[in-house]
Amino acid sequence: MDFQSLYDYKKELVNTALKELIDKVAGCHGKLLDSVKYSLFAGGKRLRPILLLSANELVEDDNEDKMHLACAVEMIHTYSLIHDDLPAMDNDEYRRGMLTNHMVYGEAMAILAGDALLNLAYETMIRNIPAELDRMQRYLKAVSVIASASGMSGMIGGQAADIDNGSVDKTEDVLNYIHQHKTEALITASLYAGMLLSDHRKELLEPVIAYGKAIGLAFQITDDILDVTGDITTLGKKPGSDEKNRKLTYPGRFGLEGSRRMAERLIDEAVTHISVFGKRSEFLKCLAYSILERTQ
Amino acid sequence: MDFQSLYDYKKELVNTALKELIDKVAGCHGKLLDSVKYSLFAGGKRLRPILLLSANELVEDDNEDKMHLACAVEMIHTYSLIHDDLPAMDNDEYRRGMLTNHMVYGEAMAILAGDALLNLAYETMIRNIPAELDRMQRYLKAVSVIASASGMSGMIGGQAADIDNGSVDKTEDVLNYIHQHKTEALITASLYAGMLLSDHRKELLEPVIAYGKAIGLAFQITDDILDVTGDITTLGKKPGSDEKNRKLTYPGRFGLEGSRRMAERLIDEAVTHISVFGKRSEFLKCLAYSILERTQ
Repeated sequence: MDFQSLYDYKKELVNTALKELIDKVAGCHGKLLDSVKYSLFAGGKRLRPILLLSANELVEDDNEDKMHLACAVEMIHTYSLIHDDLPAMDNDEYRRGMLTNHMVYGEAMAILAGDALLNLAYETMIRNIPAELDRMQRYLKAVSVIASASGMSGMIGGQAADIDNGSVDKTEDVLNYIHQHKTEALITASLYAGMLLSDHRKELLEPVIAYGKAIGLAFQITDDILDVTGDITTLGKKPGSDEKNRKLTYPGRFGLEGSRRMAERLIDEAVTHISVFGKRSEFLKCLAYSILERTQ
Repeated sequence: MDFQSLYDYKKELVNTALKELIDKVAGCHGKLLDSVKYSLFAGGKRLRPILLLSANELVEDDNEDKMHLACAVEMIHTYSLIHDDLPAMDNDEYRRGMLTNHMVYGEAMAILAGDALLNLAYETMIRNIPAELDRMQRYLKAVSVIASASGMSGMIGGQAADIDNGSVDKTEDVLNYIHQHKTEALITASLYAGMLLSDHRKELLEPVIAYGKAIGLAFQITDDILDVTGDITTLGKKPGSDEKNRKLTYPGRFGLEGSRRMAERLIDEAVTHISVFGKRSEFLKCLAYSILERTQ
Protein backbone atom coordinates (compact mmCIF):
# COMPACT_ATOMS: atom_id res chain seq x y z
CA MET A 1 0.00 0.00 0.00
CA ASP A 2 1.39 3.46 -0.82
CA PHE A 3 1.75 6.11 1.88
CA GLN A 4 -1.44 8.02 1.09
CA SER A 5 -3.61 4.87 1.00
CA LEU A 6 -2.15 3.71 4.29
CA TYR A 7 -2.73 7.16 5.82
CA ASP A 8 -6.34 7.15 4.62
CA TYR A 9 -6.81 3.63 5.95
CA LYS A 10 -5.56 4.66 9.41
CA LYS A 11 -7.74 7.77 9.27
CA GLU A 12 -10.78 5.62 8.64
CA LEU A 13 -9.91 3.40 11.60
CA VAL A 14 -9.74 6.51 13.79
CA ASN A 15 -13.02 7.88 12.42
CA THR A 16 -14.77 4.57 13.08
CA ALA A 17 -13.42 4.34 16.61
CA LEU A 18 -14.42 7.96 17.36
CA LYS A 19 -17.89 7.28 16.03
CA GLU A 20 -18.25 4.25 18.27
CA LEU A 21 -17.20 6.28 21.30
CA ILE A 22 -19.63 9.09 20.53
CA ASP A 23 -22.45 6.62 19.91
CA LYS A 24 -21.96 5.33 23.46
CA VAL A 25 -22.62 8.77 25.00
CA ALA A 26 -25.96 8.51 26.78
CA GLY A 27 -28.22 11.05 28.44
CA CYS A 28 -26.54 14.07 26.90
CA HIS A 29 -28.41 17.26 26.00
CA GLY A 30 -29.22 16.97 22.27
CA LYS A 31 -27.85 20.25 20.99
CA LEU A 32 -24.62 19.82 22.96
CA LEU A 33 -24.12 16.38 21.43
CA ASP A 34 -24.79 17.79 17.93
CA SER A 35 -22.28 20.55 18.55
CA VAL A 36 -19.64 18.07 19.71
CA LYS A 37 -20.23 15.80 16.70
CA TYR A 38 -20.16 18.74 14.29
CA SER A 39 -16.56 19.57 15.16
CA LEU A 40 -15.31 16.06 15.83
CA PHE A 41 -16.47 14.89 12.39
CA ALA A 42 -15.60 18.00 10.41
CA GLY A 43 -13.03 16.24 8.26
CA GLY A 44 -9.90 16.66 10.33
CA LYS A 45 -6.59 15.17 9.17
CA ARG A 46 -6.38 12.96 12.32
CA LEU A 47 -2.66 13.68 12.40
CA ARG A 48 -2.18 13.24 16.17
CA PRO A 49 -4.02 9.92 16.50
CA ILE A 50 -2.25 8.59 13.40
CA LEU A 51 1.09 9.60 14.92
CA LEU A 52 0.17 7.78 18.12
CA LEU A 53 -0.85 4.62 16.27
CA SER A 54 2.19 4.74 14.01
CA ALA A 55 4.66 5.31 16.85
CA ASN A 56 3.25 2.24 18.52
CA GLU A 57 3.61 0.28 15.28
CA LEU A 58 7.34 1.03 15.29
CA VAL A 59 7.64 -1.56 18.05
CA GLU A 60 4.44 -3.63 18.18
CA ASP A 61 2.06 -5.01 15.57
CA ASP A 62 -1.27 -5.03 17.28
CA ASN A 63 -1.52 -3.28 20.62
CA GLU A 64 -5.08 -3.30 21.96
CA ASP A 65 -4.87 -0.03 23.90
CA LYS A 66 -3.55 2.34 21.29
CA MET A 67 -6.88 3.29 19.70
CA HIS A 68 -8.41 4.62 22.93
CA LEU A 69 -5.48 6.95 23.45
CA ALA A 70 -5.49 7.90 19.77
CA CYS A 71 -9.15 8.93 20.01
CA ALA A 72 -8.47 10.86 23.21
CA VAL A 73 -5.71 12.99 21.64
CA GLU A 74 -8.00 13.79 18.70
CA MET A 75 -10.74 14.90 21.13
CA ILE A 76 -8.22 17.12 22.94
CA HIS A 77 -7.02 18.58 19.64
CA THR A 78 -10.61 19.21 18.48
CA TYR A 79 -11.63 20.93 21.73
CA SER A 80 -8.59 23.20 21.45
CA LEU A 81 -9.63 24.22 17.90
CA ILE A 82 -13.22 25.00 18.99
CA HIS A 83 -11.98 27.25 21.79
CA ASP A 84 -9.22 28.83 19.62
CA ASP A 85 -11.79 29.83 17.02
CA LEU A 86 -14.07 31.65 19.50
CA PRO A 87 -14.69 35.37 19.04
CA ALA A 88 -12.76 36.13 22.24
CA MET A 89 -9.78 34.17 20.90
CA ASP A 90 -8.86 34.10 17.17
CA ASN A 91 -12.41 34.92 16.04
CA ASP A 92 -12.33 32.61 13.02
CA GLU A 93 -15.46 31.94 10.99
CA TYR A 94 -14.28 29.01 8.92
CA ARG A 95 -12.27 25.87 9.54
CA ARG A 96 -11.82 22.89 7.23
CA GLY A 97 -14.19 24.55 4.75
CA MET A 98 -17.03 24.66 7.26
CA LEU A 99 -18.38 27.31 9.57
CA THR A 100 -16.68 27.15 12.98
CA ASN A 101 -18.60 25.66 15.88
CA HIS A 102 -19.72 28.95 17.44
CA MET A 103 -20.94 30.23 14.05
CA VAL A 104 -23.37 27.29 13.94
CA TYR A 105 -24.23 26.61 17.59
CA GLY A 106 -23.50 29.95 19.25
CA GLU A 107 -20.67 30.92 21.56
CA ALA A 108 -22.08 29.40 24.74
CA MET A 109 -22.64 25.99 23.19
CA ALA A 110 -19.22 26.10 21.52
CA ILE A 111 -17.54 26.75 24.87
CA LEU A 112 -19.43 23.80 26.37
CA ALA A 113 -18.72 21.56 23.36
CA GLY A 114 -15.01 22.22 23.89
CA ASP A 115 -15.31 21.48 27.60
CA ALA A 116 -17.27 18.32 26.79
CA LEU A 117 -14.62 17.04 24.36
CA LEU A 118 -11.78 17.67 26.79
CA ASN A 119 -13.65 15.82 29.51
CA LEU A 120 -14.65 13.03 27.12
CA ALA A 121 -10.99 12.50 26.23
CA TYR A 122 -10.31 11.72 29.88
CA GLU A 123 -13.49 9.68 30.28
CA THR A 124 -12.35 7.60 27.30
CA MET A 125 -8.85 7.08 28.66
CA ILE A 126 -10.05 6.30 32.18
CA ARG A 127 -12.87 3.92 31.20
CA ASN A 128 -10.55 1.83 29.08
CA ILE A 129 -7.70 1.21 31.50
CA PRO A 130 -6.52 -2.37 30.92
CA ALA A 131 -6.78 -4.74 33.88
CA GLU A 132 -3.46 -6.56 33.61
CA LEU A 133 -0.91 -4.82 35.87
CA ASP A 134 2.07 -4.45 33.56
CA ARG A 135 -0.08 -3.30 30.65
CA MET A 136 -1.99 -0.98 32.99
CA GLN A 137 1.20 0.69 34.18
CA ARG A 138 2.42 1.38 30.65
CA TYR A 139 -1.04 2.67 29.71
CA LEU A 140 -1.25 5.02 32.69
CA LYS A 141 2.21 6.39 31.99
CA ALA A 142 1.05 7.17 28.45
CA VAL A 143 -2.11 8.86 29.79
CA SER A 144 0.04 10.95 32.09
CA VAL A 145 2.21 12.12 29.18
CA ILE A 146 -0.89 13.17 27.22
CA ALA A 147 -2.37 14.98 30.25
CA SER A 148 0.80 16.98 30.90
CA ALA A 149 1.21 17.96 27.26
CA SER A 150 -2.40 19.18 27.12
CA GLY A 151 -2.33 21.32 30.24
CA MET A 152 -1.20 24.73 31.37
CA SER A 153 2.47 23.72 31.17
CA GLY A 154 1.80 22.44 27.65
CA MET A 155 -0.75 23.25 24.97
CA ILE A 156 -2.95 25.62 27.00
CA GLY A 157 0.14 27.53 28.17
CA GLY A 158 1.18 27.97 24.54
CA GLN A 159 -2.25 29.22 23.57
CA ALA A 160 -2.22 31.70 26.47
CA ALA A 161 1.16 33.08 25.38
CA ASP A 162 -0.18 33.28 21.83
CA ILE A 163 -3.25 35.37 22.63
CA ASP A 164 -1.65 37.50 25.33
CA ASN A 165 -1.83 41.17 24.13
CA GLY A 166 -1.25 40.73 20.41
CA SER A 167 2.13 39.30 19.67
CA VAL A 168 4.04 41.23 17.04
CA ASP A 169 6.35 42.80 19.59
CA LYS A 170 7.30 39.45 21.09
CA THR A 171 10.79 38.06 20.99
CA GLU A 172 11.97 34.92 19.23
CA ASP A 173 12.04 33.19 22.65
CA VAL A 174 8.33 33.84 23.05
CA LEU A 175 7.64 32.64 19.49
CA ASN A 176 9.48 29.42 20.32
CA TYR A 177 7.64 29.04 23.65
CA ILE A 178 4.29 29.46 21.90
CA HIS A 179 4.93 26.89 19.22
CA GLN A 180 6.75 24.39 21.40
CA HIS A 181 3.73 24.42 23.66
CA LYS A 182 0.77 25.12 21.42
CA THR A 183 1.55 22.64 18.64
CA GLU A 184 4.65 20.60 19.35
CA ALA A 185 3.65 19.46 22.84
CA LEU A 186 0.62 17.41 21.81
CA ILE A 187 2.26 16.11 18.62
CA THR A 188 5.29 14.88 20.55
CA ALA A 189 3.11 13.52 23.36
CA SER A 190 1.06 11.53 20.85
CA LEU A 191 4.18 9.82 19.54
CA TYR A 192 5.66 9.36 23.02
CA ALA A 193 2.42 7.90 24.39
CA GLY A 194 2.16 5.52 21.45
CA MET A 195 5.66 4.20 22.15
CA LEU A 196 5.14 3.98 25.91
CA LEU A 197 2.27 1.54 25.47
CA SER A 198 4.76 -1.04 24.24
CA ASP A 199 8.31 -0.06 25.06
CA HIS A 200 10.09 1.97 27.73
CA ARG A 201 13.63 1.75 26.43
CA LYS A 202 15.29 5.16 26.44
CA GLU A 203 17.28 4.47 23.26
CA LEU A 204 13.99 3.98 21.40
CA LEU A 205 12.00 6.77 23.07
CA GLU A 206 14.60 9.45 22.42
CA PRO A 207 14.61 9.32 18.60
CA VAL A 208 10.79 9.26 18.57
CA ILE A 209 10.64 12.37 20.75
CA ALA A 210 13.27 14.11 18.61
CA TYR A 211 11.22 13.23 15.51
CA GLY A 212 8.12 14.67 17.22
CA LYS A 213 9.78 17.94 18.13
CA ALA A 214 11.09 18.38 14.60
CA ILE A 215 7.86 17.60 12.76
CA GLY A 216 5.82 19.56 15.36
CA LEU A 217 7.79 22.71 14.69
CA ALA A 218 7.82 22.08 10.94
CA PHE A 219 4.05 21.64 11.06
CA GLN A 220 3.63 24.98 12.82
CA ILE A 221 5.93 26.73 10.35
CA THR A 222 3.99 25.34 7.36
CA ASP A 223 0.79 26.41 9.13
CA ASP A 224 2.11 29.95 9.35
CA ILE A 225 3.23 29.82 5.70
CA LEU A 226 -0.20 28.60 4.56
CA ASP A 227 -1.82 31.45 6.47
CA VAL A 228 0.09 33.79 4.13
CA THR A 229 0.09 31.87 0.84
CA GLY A 230 -3.00 29.63 1.04
CA ASP A 231 -6.40 30.32 -0.45
CA ILE A 232 -9.73 29.72 1.23
CA THR A 233 -10.78 26.91 -1.16
CA THR A 234 -7.91 24.52 -0.46
CA LEU A 235 -7.16 25.83 3.04
CA GLY A 236 -10.77 25.52 4.22
CA LYS A 237 -10.43 28.67 6.31
CA LYS A 238 -9.70 32.31 5.64
CA PRO A 239 -5.97 32.94 5.30
CA GLY A 240 -4.57 36.11 6.87
CA SER A 241 -5.86 35.26 10.35
CA ASP A 242 -2.43 35.71 11.92
CA GLU A 243 -1.98 39.14 10.40
CA LYS A 244 -5.51 40.12 11.49
CA ASN A 245 -4.73 39.03 15.04
CA ARG A 246 -1.28 40.68 14.94
CA LYS A 247 0.45 37.39 15.63
CA LEU A 248 4.17 36.88 15.49
CA THR A 249 4.78 34.13 12.93
CA TYR A 250 7.75 32.40 11.29
CA PRO A 251 7.20 34.09 7.90
CA GLY A 252 6.80 37.40 9.75
CA ARG A 253 10.10 36.83 11.51
CA PHE A 254 12.21 34.94 8.93
CA GLY A 255 10.42 35.61 5.61
CA LEU A 256 8.64 33.02 3.46
CA GLU A 257 11.79 31.57 1.92
CA GLY A 258 13.64 31.45 5.24
CA SER A 259 10.68 29.72 6.84
CA ARG A 260 10.48 27.15 4.05
CA ARG A 261 14.17 26.33 4.47
CA MET A 262 13.69 25.96 8.23
CA ALA A 263 10.83 23.53 7.68
CA GLU A 264 12.87 21.47 5.18
CA ARG A 265 15.81 21.27 7.55
CA LEU A 266 13.54 20.14 10.37
CA ILE A 267 11.99 17.41 8.24
CA ASP A 268 15.44 16.13 7.24
CA GLU A 269 16.34 15.96 10.93
CA ALA A 270 13.10 14.15 11.76
CA VAL A 271 13.72 11.55 9.06
CA THR A 272 17.27 10.94 10.32
CA HIS A 273 16.04 10.39 13.88
CA ILE A 274 13.26 7.99 12.99
CA SER A 275 15.51 5.94 10.67
CA VAL A 276 16.84 3.96 13.64
CA PHE A 277 13.67 1.87 13.33
CA GLY A 278 14.71 0.68 9.86
CA LYS A 279 11.96 -0.63 7.63
CA ARG A 280 9.31 0.01 10.30
CA SER A 281 9.95 3.76 10.08
CA GLU A 282 8.83 4.00 6.43
CA PHE A 283 5.37 5.38 7.19
CA LEU A 284 6.57 8.06 9.62
CA LYS A 285 9.29 9.10 7.17
CA CYS A 286 6.72 9.61 4.41
CA LEU A 287 4.48 11.42 6.87
CA ALA A 288 7.29 13.82 7.71
CA TYR A 289 7.92 14.61 4.03
CA SER A 290 4.17 15.09 3.49
CA ILE A 291 4.21 18.02 5.92
CA LEU A 292 6.26 19.98 3.41
CA GLU A 293 3.57 19.36 0.76
CA ARG A 294 0.67 20.56 2.94
CA THR A 295 -2.02 22.64 1.27
CA GLN A 296 -4.40 22.58 4.25
CA MET B 1 -14.91 20.62 67.88
CA ASP B 2 -18.24 22.14 66.78
CA PHE B 3 -19.47 21.72 63.21
CA GLN B 4 -18.35 25.12 61.94
CA SER B 5 -14.83 24.81 63.37
CA LEU B 6 -14.49 21.35 61.88
CA TYR B 7 -15.77 22.61 58.52
CA ASP B 8 -13.27 25.48 58.60
CA TYR B 9 -10.48 23.11 59.58
CA LYS B 10 -11.25 20.85 56.60
CA LYS B 11 -11.49 23.90 54.35
CA GLU B 12 -8.00 24.94 55.38
CA LEU B 13 -6.66 21.47 54.66
CA VAL B 14 -8.14 21.71 51.16
CA ASN B 15 -6.77 25.21 50.64
CA THR B 16 -3.29 24.12 51.68
CA ALA B 17 -3.38 21.07 49.41
CA LEU B 18 -4.60 23.15 46.46
CA LYS B 19 -1.85 25.66 47.07
CA GLU B 20 0.78 22.92 47.09
CA LEU B 21 -0.54 21.55 43.80
CA ILE B 22 -0.54 24.96 42.13
CA ASP B 23 2.96 25.71 43.43
CA LYS B 24 4.17 22.61 41.61
CA VAL B 25 2.98 23.91 38.21
CA ALA B 26 6.11 24.69 36.21
CA GLY B 27 6.71 26.42 32.90
CA CYS B 28 3.25 27.95 32.66
CA HIS B 29 2.58 31.30 31.03
CA GLY B 30 2.49 33.85 33.88
CA LYS B 31 -0.82 35.55 33.21
CA LEU B 32 -2.58 32.22 32.71
CA LEU B 33 -1.26 30.99 36.04
CA ASP B 34 -2.41 34.22 37.74
CA SER B 35 -5.84 33.85 36.21
CA VAL B 36 -6.11 30.23 37.41
CA LYS B 37 -5.00 31.17 40.94
CA TYR B 38 -7.36 34.14 41.06
CA SER B 39 -10.42 31.93 40.73
CA LEU B 40 -9.11 28.91 42.61
CA PHE B 41 -8.32 31.03 45.67
CA ALA B 42 -11.31 33.36 45.52
CA GLY B 43 -12.72 32.15 48.83
CA GLY B 44 -14.91 29.27 47.70
CA LYS B 45 -16.80 27.17 50.25
CA ARG B 46 -14.90 24.01 49.21
CA LEU B 47 -18.17 22.12 49.58
CA ARG B 48 -17.40 19.35 47.08
CA PRO B 49 -13.92 18.49 48.38
CA ILE B 50 -15.21 18.57 51.97
CA LEU B 51 -18.02 16.20 50.97
CA LEU B 52 -15.48 13.86 49.40
CA LEU B 53 -13.22 13.89 52.45
CA SER B 54 -16.16 13.49 54.82
CA ALA B 55 -17.74 10.62 52.90
CA ASN B 56 -14.44 8.81 53.12
CA GLU B 57 -14.28 9.49 56.86
CA LEU B 58 -17.60 7.66 57.27
CA VAL B 59 -15.63 4.44 56.78
CA GLU B 60 -11.90 5.19 57.16
CA ASP B 61 -9.85 7.44 59.41
CA ASP B 62 -6.88 8.39 57.35
CA ASN B 63 -6.97 7.48 53.68
CA GLU B 64 -3.93 8.80 51.83
CA ASP B 65 -5.59 9.24 48.46
CA LYS B 66 -8.64 11.29 49.33
CA MET B 67 -7.02 14.75 49.21
CA HIS B 68 -5.88 14.43 45.59
CA LEU B 69 -9.40 13.62 44.47
CA ALA B 70 -10.83 16.33 46.72
CA CYS B 71 -8.59 18.93 45.06
CA ALA B 72 -9.52 17.63 41.63
CA VAL B 73 -13.28 18.05 42.21
CA GLU B 74 -12.68 21.60 43.45
CA MET B 75 -10.69 22.38 40.30
CA ILE B 76 -13.52 20.99 38.16
CA HIS B 77 -16.09 23.02 40.09
CA THR B 78 -13.99 26.19 39.76
CA TYR B 79 -13.49 25.79 36.02
CA SER B 80 -17.24 25.34 35.59
CA LEU B 81 -17.87 28.62 37.44
CA ILE B 82 -15.34 30.53 35.32
CA HIS B 83 -16.98 29.31 32.12
CA ASP B 84 -20.54 29.81 33.49
CA ASP B 85 -19.79 33.45 34.29
CA LEU B 86 -18.54 34.27 30.76
CA PRO B 87 -20.40 36.92 28.75
CA ALA B 88 -21.59 34.25 26.30
CA MET B 89 -23.03 32.22 29.18
CA ASP B 90 -24.54 33.87 32.31
CA ASN B 91 -22.57 37.11 31.85
CA ASP B 92 -21.96 37.63 35.58
CA GLU B 93 -19.64 40.35 36.79
CA TYR B 94 -19.27 39.32 40.40
CA ARG B 95 -18.78 36.08 42.27
CA ARG B 96 -17.88 35.60 45.94
CA GLY B 97 -17.64 39.39 46.29
CA MET B 98 -14.96 39.64 43.64
CA LEU B 99 -14.97 40.48 39.97
CA THR B 100 -15.38 37.35 37.85
CA ASN B 101 -12.34 35.97 36.06
CA HIS B 102 -13.08 37.46 32.64
CA MET B 103 -13.70 40.91 34.18
CA VAL B 104 -10.10 40.86 35.45
CA TYR B 105 -8.19 38.83 32.86
CA GLY B 106 -10.38 39.18 29.77
CA GLU B 107 -12.57 36.62 28.08
CA ALA B 108 -9.84 34.75 26.21
CA MET B 109 -7.72 34.20 29.31
CA ALA B 110 -10.81 33.20 31.32
CA ILE B 111 -11.70 30.54 28.75
CA LEU B 112 -8.13 29.20 28.92
CA ALA B 113 -8.05 29.38 32.74
CA GLY B 114 -11.17 27.19 32.80
CA ASP B 115 -9.62 24.76 30.32
CA ALA B 116 -6.42 24.71 32.37
CA LEU B 117 -8.25 23.92 35.62
CA LEU B 118 -10.24 21.11 34.04
CA ASN B 119 -7.06 19.62 32.62
CA LEU B 120 -5.18 20.15 35.89
CA ALA B 121 -7.88 18.21 37.75
CA TYR B 122 -7.09 15.20 35.57
CA GLU B 123 -3.32 15.78 35.73
CA THR B 124 -3.65 15.77 39.53
CA MET B 125 -5.70 12.58 39.62
CA ILE B 126 -3.49 10.79 37.10
CA ARG B 127 -0.14 11.80 38.62
CA ASN B 128 -1.15 10.55 42.04
CA ILE B 129 -2.40 7.07 41.20
CA PRO B 130 -1.30 4.81 44.07
CA ALA B 131 1.00 1.91 43.17
CA GLU B 132 -0.51 -0.89 45.25
CA LEU B 133 -2.96 -2.81 43.07
CA ASP B 134 -6.02 -3.01 45.31
CA ARG B 135 -5.75 0.62 46.35
CA MET B 136 -5.12 1.60 42.72
CA GLN B 137 -8.29 -0.14 41.56
CA ARG B 138 -10.46 1.63 44.13
CA TYR B 139 -8.80 4.93 43.27
CA LEU B 140 -9.35 4.51 39.53
CA LYS B 141 -13.00 3.60 40.06
CA ALA B 142 -13.40 6.84 42.04
CA VAL B 143 -11.66 8.82 39.26
CA SER B 144 -14.03 7.27 36.75
CA VAL B 145 -17.07 8.35 38.79
CA ILE B 146 -15.78 11.93 38.94
CA ALA B 147 -15.02 11.96 35.20
CA SER B 148 -18.50 10.75 34.24
CA ALA B 149 -20.26 13.21 36.55
CA SER B 150 -18.26 16.09 35.08
CA GLY B 151 -18.86 15.32 31.44
CA MET B 152 -21.50 15.79 28.78
CA SER B 153 -23.75 13.18 30.39
CA GLY B 154 -23.31 15.00 33.70
CA MET B 155 -22.46 18.56 34.68
CA ILE B 156 -21.71 19.92 31.20
CA GLY B 157 -24.96 18.41 29.88
CA GLY B 158 -26.87 20.20 32.65
CA GLN B 159 -25.19 23.48 31.85
CA ALA B 160 -26.01 23.06 28.14
CA ALA B 161 -29.69 22.43 28.93
CA ASP B 162 -29.61 25.47 31.22
CA ILE B 163 -28.32 27.93 28.67
CA ASP B 164 -30.20 26.51 25.68
CA ASN B 165 -32.57 29.26 24.38
CA GLY B 166 -33.51 30.94 27.66
CA SER B 167 -35.45 28.62 29.85
CA VAL B 168 -38.68 30.06 31.16
CA ASP B 169 -40.78 28.03 28.78
CA LYS B 170 -39.20 24.76 29.86
CA THR B 171 -41.08 21.98 31.57
CA GLU B 172 -40.51 20.65 35.06
CA ASP B 173 -38.75 17.65 33.50
CA VAL B 174 -36.20 19.97 31.94
CA LEU B 175 -35.78 21.85 35.25
CA ASN B 176 -35.08 18.52 36.94
CA TYR B 177 -32.66 17.43 34.20
CA ILE B 178 -30.76 20.70 34.51
CA HIS B 179 -30.33 20.55 38.26
CA GLN B 180 -29.71 16.83 38.50
CA HIS B 181 -26.90 17.30 36.04
CA LYS B 182 -25.57 20.78 36.65
CA THR B 183 -25.32 20.65 40.44
CA GLU B 184 -26.31 17.28 41.85
CA ALA B 185 -24.06 15.18 39.62
CA LEU B 186 -20.73 16.52 40.91
CA ILE B 187 -21.95 16.75 44.53
CA THR B 188 -23.10 13.14 44.49
CA ALA B 189 -19.96 12.03 42.63
CA SER B 190 -17.77 13.70 45.26
CA LEU B 191 -19.45 11.70 48.02
CA TYR B 192 -19.49 8.51 45.98
CA ALA B 193 -15.83 8.83 45.03
CA GLY B 194 -14.90 9.48 48.66
CA MET B 195 -16.61 6.27 49.73
CA LEU B 196 -15.20 4.21 46.85
CA LEU B 197 -11.64 4.89 47.97
CA SER B 198 -12.30 2.74 51.04
CA ASP B 199 -15.41 0.67 50.65
CA HIS B 200 -17.35 -0.90 47.81
CA ARG B 201 -20.25 -2.36 49.76
CA LYS B 202 -23.57 -1.55 48.11
CA GLU B 203 -25.41 -1.20 51.43
CA LEU B 204 -23.02 1.61 52.37
CA LEU B 205 -22.78 3.27 48.96
CA GLU B 206 -26.54 3.55 48.48
CA PRO B 207 -27.36 5.77 51.48
CA VAL B 208 -24.40 8.04 50.65
CA ILE B 209 -25.64 8.47 47.08
CA ALA B 210 -29.21 9.11 48.31
CA TYR B 211 -27.81 11.72 50.73
CA GLY B 212 -25.90 13.32 47.84
CA LYS B 213 -28.92 13.52 45.56
CA ALA B 214 -31.02 15.10 48.32
CA ILE B 215 -28.50 17.73 49.43
CA GLY B 216 -27.51 18.40 45.82
CA LEU B 217 -31.06 19.32 44.89
CA ALA B 218 -31.58 21.23 48.16
CA PHE B 219 -28.39 23.16 47.44
CA GLN B 220 -29.66 24.14 44.00
CA ILE B 221 -33.05 25.18 45.39
CA THR B 222 -31.43 27.39 48.06
CA ASP B 223 -29.20 28.81 45.31
CA ASP B 224 -32.29 29.77 43.33
CA ILE B 225 -33.92 31.22 46.49
CA LEU B 226 -30.82 33.31 47.28
CA ASP B 227 -30.83 34.66 43.73
CA VAL B 228 -34.25 36.14 44.57
CA THR B 229 -33.86 37.10 48.25
CA GLY B 230 -30.10 37.62 48.69
CA ASP B 231 -28.26 40.91 48.62
CA ILE B 232 -24.96 41.57 46.91
CA THR B 233 -23.05 42.12 50.18
CA THR B 234 -23.65 38.72 51.74
CA LEU B 235 -24.18 36.87 48.44
CA GLY B 236 -20.97 38.18 46.89
CA LYS B 237 -22.60 38.39 43.49
CA LYS B 238 -25.48 40.31 41.98
CA PRO B 239 -28.80 38.62 42.75
CA GLY B 240 -31.41 38.52 39.99
CA SER B 241 -29.10 36.77 37.53
CA ASP B 242 -31.65 34.01 36.86
CA GLU B 243 -34.40 36.48 36.07
CA LYS B 244 -32.03 38.48 33.86
CA ASN B 245 -31.16 35.32 31.95
CA ARG B 246 -34.82 34.19 31.87
CA LYS B 247 -33.98 30.97 33.69
CA LEU B 248 -36.58 28.56 34.96
CA THR B 249 -35.98 28.26 38.71
CA TYR B 250 -37.60 26.53 41.69
CA PRO B 251 -38.99 29.80 43.16
CA GLY B 252 -40.24 30.71 39.67
CA ARG B 253 -42.01 27.36 39.42
CA PHE B 254 -43.09 26.64 43.02
CA GLY B 255 -42.91 30.05 44.76
CA LEU B 256 -40.48 31.01 47.53
CA GLU B 257 -42.42 29.30 50.33
CA GLY B 258 -42.99 26.14 48.29
CA SER B 259 -39.30 26.03 47.39
CA ARG B 260 -38.26 26.44 51.03
CA ARG B 261 -40.51 23.55 52.05
CA MET B 262 -39.04 21.38 49.29
CA ALA B 263 -35.52 22.13 50.50
CA GLU B 264 -36.43 21.32 54.11
CA ARG B 265 -38.03 18.04 53.11
CA LEU B 266 -34.95 17.09 51.09
CA ILE B 267 -32.61 17.86 53.99
CA ASP B 268 -34.72 15.70 56.33
CA GLU B 269 -34.45 12.87 53.81
CA ALA B 270 -30.70 13.34 53.50
CA VAL B 271 -30.24 13.20 57.28
CA THR B 272 -32.31 10.01 57.50
CA HIS B 273 -30.20 8.31 54.79
CA ILE B 274 -26.83 9.21 56.28
CA SER B 275 -27.87 8.16 59.80
CA VAL B 276 -27.01 4.52 59.01
CA PHE B 277 -23.41 5.49 59.75
CA GLY B 278 -24.30 6.32 63.36
CA LYS B 279 -21.91 8.60 65.21
CA ARG B 280 -19.64 8.93 62.16
CA SER B 281 -22.43 10.67 60.25
CA GLU B 282 -22.58 13.65 62.64
CA PHE B 283 -20.56 16.00 60.41
CA LEU B 284 -22.53 15.26 57.23
CA LYS B 285 -25.82 15.67 59.13
CA CYS B 286 -24.79 19.12 60.35
CA LEU B 287 -23.56 19.95 56.86
CA ALA B 288 -26.98 19.05 55.44
CA TYR B 289 -28.77 21.32 57.94
CA SER B 290 -26.32 24.13 57.20
CA ILE B 291 -27.53 24.20 53.58
CA LEU B 292 -30.88 25.54 54.83
CA GLU B 293 -29.05 28.39 56.59
CA ARG B 294 -27.04 29.46 53.53
CA THR B 295 -26.61 33.18 52.93
CA GLN B 296 -24.06 32.78 50.13
